[in-house]
Amino acid sequence: MTDDDIRPGEKAVAIPIPDGPQLYVIGRIRTPWTNRKDCPRQGSPDGPECRIEVFEPWREALAGLDRFSSVEVLYWLDRSRRDLVLQSPRHDGETRGTFALRSPVRPNPIGTVMARLVRVEPGAVVVRGLDCLDGTPLIDLKPDRCQYSPLAPGKPGAPPAA
Amino acid sequence: MTDDDIRPGEKAVAIPIPDGPQLYVIGRIRTPWTNRKDCPRQGSPDGPECRIEVFEPWREALAGLDRFSSVEVLYWLDRSRRDLVLQSPRHDGETRGTFALRSPVRPNPIGTVMARLVRVEPGAVVVRGLDCLDGTPLIDLKPDRCQYSPLAPGKPGAPPAA
Repeated sequence: MTDDDIRPGEKAVAIPIPDGPQLYVIGRIRTPWTNRKDCPRQGSPDGPECRIEVFEPWREALAGLDRFSSVEVLYWLDRSRRDLVLQSPRHDGETRGTFALRSPVRPNPIGTVMARLVRVEPGAVVVRGLDCLDGTPLIDLKPDRCQYSPLAPGKPGAPPAA
Repeated sequence: MTDDDIRPGEKAVAIPIPDGPQLYVIGRIRTPWTNRKDCPRQGSPDGPECRIEVFEPWREALAGLDRFSSVEVLYWLDRSRRDLVLQSPRHDGETRGTFALRSPVRPNPIGTVMARLVRVEPGAVVVRGLDCLDGTPLIDLKPDRCQYSPLAPGKPGAPPAA
């Protein structure tokens, strides 16, 4: 389930089988990237359009998302190892704790990104700004916390700004 | 596991037992709020100090987090029902899809908040800006994505801005 080797300075710990809450995979993210080397390190709002497919019975929960201009996307990095507490990212060689990094390698490999909302389709959301592999499992969609109150001006249905 | 009733306009769907990835509870969040009615609807950077306790074997993963001035906190809203696709939040009475709300009620009740980092202690992080109940299970800590590159100016160890 992993394609990472341990680099100098990194530290893995013995971890039990996970015994916490269990997730639903609520959809699947379609991106142009099929292997890690091609993925951007961080998504850009000018990146390519990506289509987030939402599975039943959750599609109805997209109602009203089109009022927002950006959306927080939570996804599960299913190829990441989960046992590293210290990491040495390739780009600087310095060793840091996992919680001081946004690396996909972490005890709960959940990615969070604020993506630009392009459009909502029946059962899907098209966005820009993702950086994950094609086929990545979707965990949640939320309106941008900065836009949540008030809603983004100029979007249909938005109330006048407070 | 829930203390919500369904309000007019809301819609619950039949959902299976979760069959997706399983989480580690990596710590516990201490806040002044012991019931939902007291919780702020949204955390404020001027809110009270809250202490996030990190469990072993994950404590070493905090190394270097003190360079950042804000931290993204992911937590599990363990009292939330998971089966609503349409919701009518009390404050406006309008019905919207779950993915157009930041409500704790969602298929995967993961809260995300950008908190102000006050200090890092051995095995714990003190922050302001949380809005969750005392005892909430911790899922992840990440540096603020906006500060991740470059690091926050003025923090020890930060490289010169690019």
